[in-house]
Amino acid sequence: MKVLFIGDIVGSVGRKALEDVLPYVKQKYQPDIIIANGENAAGGRGITRKIANHFYDLGVHGITMGNHTWDNKEIFDFIDDEERIVRPANFPSGTPGRGFTVIKNKSKQLVIVNLQGRTFLPPLDCPFEKADEILNQLHKNYKNILVDFHAEATSEKIAMGWYLDGKVSVVLGTHTHVQTNDNQILPQGTAYVTDIGMVGSKEGVLGMERLSVLRKFKTQLPVRFIPDEGKWQFHGSIIEIDESTGLAKKIDLIRLAEDQVIFE
Amino acid sequence: MKVLFIGDIVGSVGRKALEDVLPYVKQKYQPDIIIANGENAAGGRGITRKIANHFYDLGVHGITMGNHTWDNKEIFDFIDDEERIVRPANFPSGTPGRGFTVIKNKSKQLVIVNLQGRTFLPPLDCPFEKADEILNQLHKNYKNILVDFHAEATSEKIAMGWYLDGKVSVVLGTHTHVQTNDNQILPQGTAYVTDIGMVGSKEGVLGMERLSVLRKFKTQLPVRFIPDEGKWQFHGSIIEIDESTGLAKKIDLIRLAEDQVIFE
Amino acid sequence: MKVLFIGDIVGSVGRKALEDVLPYVKQKYQPDIIIANGENAAGGRGITRKIANHFYDLGVHGITMGNHTWDNKEIFDFIDDEERIVRPANFPSGTPGRGFTVIKNKSKQLVIVNLQGRTFLPPLDCPFEKADEILNQLHKNYKNILVDFHAEATSEKIAMGWYLDGKVSVVLGTHTHVQTNDNQILPQGTAYVTDIGMVGSKEGVLGMERLSVLRKFKTQLPVRFIPDEGKWQFHGSIIEIDESTGLAKKIDLIRLAEDQVIFE
Amino acid sequence: MKVLFIGDIVGSVGRKALEDVLPYVKQKYQPDIIIANGENAAGGRGITRKIANHFYDLGVHGITMGNHTWDNKEIFDFIDDEERIVRPANFPSGTPGRGFTVIKNKSKQLVIVNLQGRTFLPPLDCPFEKADEILNQLHKNYKNILVDFHAEATSEKIAMGWYLDGKVSVVLGTHTHVQTNDNQILPQGTAYVTDIGMVGSKEGVLGMERLSVLRKFKTQLPVRFIPDEGKWQFHGSIIEIDESTGLAKKIDLIRLAEDQVIFE
Ligand SMILES: [Fe+2]
Ligand SMILES: [Fe+2]
Ligand SMILES: [Fe+2]
Ligand SMILES: [Fe+2]
Ligand SMILES: [Fe+2]
Ligand SMILES: [Fe+2]
Ligand SMILES: [Fe+2]
Ligand SMILES: [Fe+2]
Repeated sequence: MKVLFIGDIVGSVGRKALEDVLPYVKQKYQPDIIIANGENAAGGRGITRKIANHFYDLGVHGITMGNHTWDNKEIFDFIDDEERIVRPANFPSGTPGRGFTVIKNKSKQLVIVNLQGRTFLPPLDCPFEKADEILNQLHKNYKNILVDFHAEATSEKIAMGWYLDGKVSVVLGTHTHVQTNDNQILPQGTAYVTDIGMVGSKEGVLGMERLSVLRKFKTQLPVRFIPDEGKWQFHGSIIEIDESTGLAKKIDLIRLAEDQVIFE
Repeated sequence: MKVLFIGDIVGSVGRKALEDVLPYVKQKYQPDIIIANGENAAGGRGITRKIANHFYDLGVHGITMGNHTWDNKEIFDFIDDEERIVRPANFPSGTPGRGFTVIKNKSKQLVIVNLQGRTFLPPLDCPFEKADEILNQLHKNYKNILVDFHAEATSEKIAMGWYLDGKVSVVLGTHTHVQTNDNQILPQGTAYVTDIGMVGSKEGVLGMERLSVLRKFKTQLPVRFIPDEGKWQFHGSIIEIDESTGLAKKIDLIRLAEDQVIFE
Repeated sequence: MKVLFIGDIVGSVGRKALEDVLPYVKQKYQPDIIIANGENAAGGRGITRKIANHFYDLGVHGITMGNHTWDNKEIFDFIDDEERIVRPANFPSGTPGRGFTVIKNKSKQLVIVNLQGRTFLPPLDCPFEKADEILNQLHKNYKNILVDFHAEATSEKIAMGWYLDGKVSVVLGTHTHVQTNDNQILPQGTAYVTDIGMVGSKEGVLGMERLSVLRKFKTQLPVRFIPDEGKWQFHGSIIEIDESTGLAKKIDLIRLAEDQVIFE
Repeated sequence: MKVLFIGDIVGSVGRKALEDVLPYVKQKYQPDIIIANGENAAGGRGITRKIANHFYDLGVHGITMGNHTWDNKEIFDFIDDEERIVRPANFPSGTPGRGFTVIKNKSKQLVIVNLQGRTFLPPLDCPFEKADEILNQLHKNYKNILVDFHAEATSEKIAMGWYLDGKVSVVLGTHTHVQTNDNQILPQGTAYVTDIGMVGSKEGVLGMERLSVLRKFKTQLPVRFIPDEGKWQFHGSIIEIDESTGLAKKIDLIRLAEDQVIFE
């Protein structure tokens, strides 16, 4: 099974990049299942039902979130009924939505799990303990499992990679919006990359307008950030999973930019 | 001019990797000047005079540091006299050592500047303001300038890239120990990459023994970290600078691992 | 000279408490100069010109701020022209407003200085270095100096107390909204207290509605905080300064609550 | 029942203060049960068996800890067998020691619970959820319950006070080492104070030698902190509990200093 994972999609430029690039990427890589991180899809903050539906229409099968899950209040209206979206599983019990779900497309199925790191981020439940708990449950019925570990610190993400090596098909990171060059198959067969990167303006800072971000760093005054309107970049990863074992055979990075790509 | 920059060298495995790989990399890329980050060279914490000298013997011309600069107390004995080492320039005035220096090799010269980020790191002076101050001074006499921005947050690093675009030859990041896949020439001609990565054990977490790191995350109890003894990875970057303008022509990543590399 | 300092005034309950209590406190203590922290005066976030003027009408002579200085955008319209308001002096150079000012009432004058801590707070310039710089300037002409060190960590506040002991009349803390029971004259003659406390609802959390704060801690979901509407508490301090030396003779705490106080 | 709670005892000066003051305080207040925070007892970092035994010999019946629980490695040897010491209950399951225990003296018994905050502190399990879990268990058999909430942020501590109001006898805070002037009986009958303060040198910063702390703030270089050797301060609180209801009748602060106290 081939899985395409697409990094944090930021604002309208990110959504436009998805529209422009997904047909090309689908044709080139023929993924069986497509997952995208949607925590910044609505103006950089959260996601709406309409945007999620748009993603499905474009071919996305499942959506992971992160620390920005709740930024757009609309999510509270639909997350409980929306089985294709996962938010970090280690939010306190009672949190709306779900932390893992089964994504199906034709004969293929993949469980996606969302966890959030705690280093430099708010204090949720332990993501390692939560991973144990979820996998105990999943391993009775499922082998093909992708974990999106939405976290800031490289140490926490790499530690999670080692922790889950051999227990899941893929551990990949999101949140920093910068793709890392460490895609690899870990010794026990789990595909790993510290961060997938993002989809949105390449001319901003993490997809947001850069002068306002610079103003914040230089002045420490309150600044309102808006998504940048520049040319896009599109970051993702293609992972090949051996469905019989649930282990990964290959993990490749996708790094495209509007001003460089040639649609063959 | 071709510059080779080598990511944070961690412990004895990192030093051994340098010994093994540098001859090969020198032959392949023919760099004019070689700079390495040395903040984790001595057992993961700081650097000693002996290790610095060993680096010079291997062909390193200049060393940058970071938040671990002072971890090995020996540095206070030699940093004031050691013109080839820079520590973050935005430490308070009066701090031992220097924040920038001119590195020369044969007819080539490159100014290296070290700055440290403040997001998720201790409160130093503003790195953006400090960059302005240093460049005001340097621009009278120098064009070929490399900035090692030692920082955690991708936003702060990318912001610095934009801030210095066109003003220096290279802005590269260190500290996260994970190489990022965003090497690029910015619009005004500055080469940029968010993080160079590291040199040290590939089987650890950021070069440190992984079970102890996992124990820390899972138990929150005090844990002593030691450098991992596993097979090495070697991350660096080759940057080509047009000496007449001080702008960059090319920035490539180097990503080697002991178990994969074939020395041609 | 007797100085009355009033802790962070929070929202409309805080403003009402000021109206109710100030006449009584003025009569009882006969302060020469009255200073209040106003960073939470407007709905818990910042201050407006109208509220500042209301404070002056009630008898306040000078206003200090803190990390919430800029929360109400109106302040950018008037802070440059408003000589009775100080914001933390260690914001970057070029920040609107001023970090210290001379407050006069009849024959009395007191310099008020506002500094902000960096522990658990955003990275401003070093408050200790900034204090040195300001005092170098002030000591040519002034002896009676009050420093409002707006900071979170007790260690940083106490360290500032020791640092300025003998150099200013008073070092007092604001920001935590809880009055500390450590008012004292330090050995070299400076009055000190770690935190003055606040003026606003006693039934909330730091003056804000308590159920929403609890909801935040328990759910980690986004929550909008509004000032609580409960009965007030009023915290302040009365400091007696020997004007000839600029040193303090006495520092007492004021702790009043709406349901307990009897206006004699 | 009268309970004496003594704030974080720091190093040898703190231990000496306990020796000097406890007889006097016992005679004056006649407490039935004496609890002390011991996380800084051994050179400022953790506690040893010998020190704990010394505390018991002086009349302490139970010891609470905090974020420094594990600083002295010796604790791993005895905490499992030592029923009079509690460490924060919201460490991960499997952590050595216990989070609550029953302290008895003659006919009196008091359950002591230790919880640690997460704001500006490492990411433990949710202290609010853990409090619920423990109280569900305790309320079957116990009414007289004291919670030491070891936390940094005033907001988190006050929130815990409100959260447990009416459910326990006392919620008091430790960790900041500065006594707060907000002792009160909350509306539902729980005694509350944000921080008890400390026992140790009054001439340091939180009990540690002050020049080294200042050096740290000013230079950001590594500094070794040692307990200060100055004159002591002794902070505690006396709480009167109605044993039949488990609610508090009174909470008073104790603030003594070596250079001021007169043993009557
Ligand atoms: Fe994101
Ligand atoms: Fe995120
Ligand atoms: Fe490093
Ligand atoms: Fe570093
Ligand atoms: Fe405030
Ligand atoms: Fe504040
Ligand atoms: Fe403590
Ligand atoms: Fe503590």
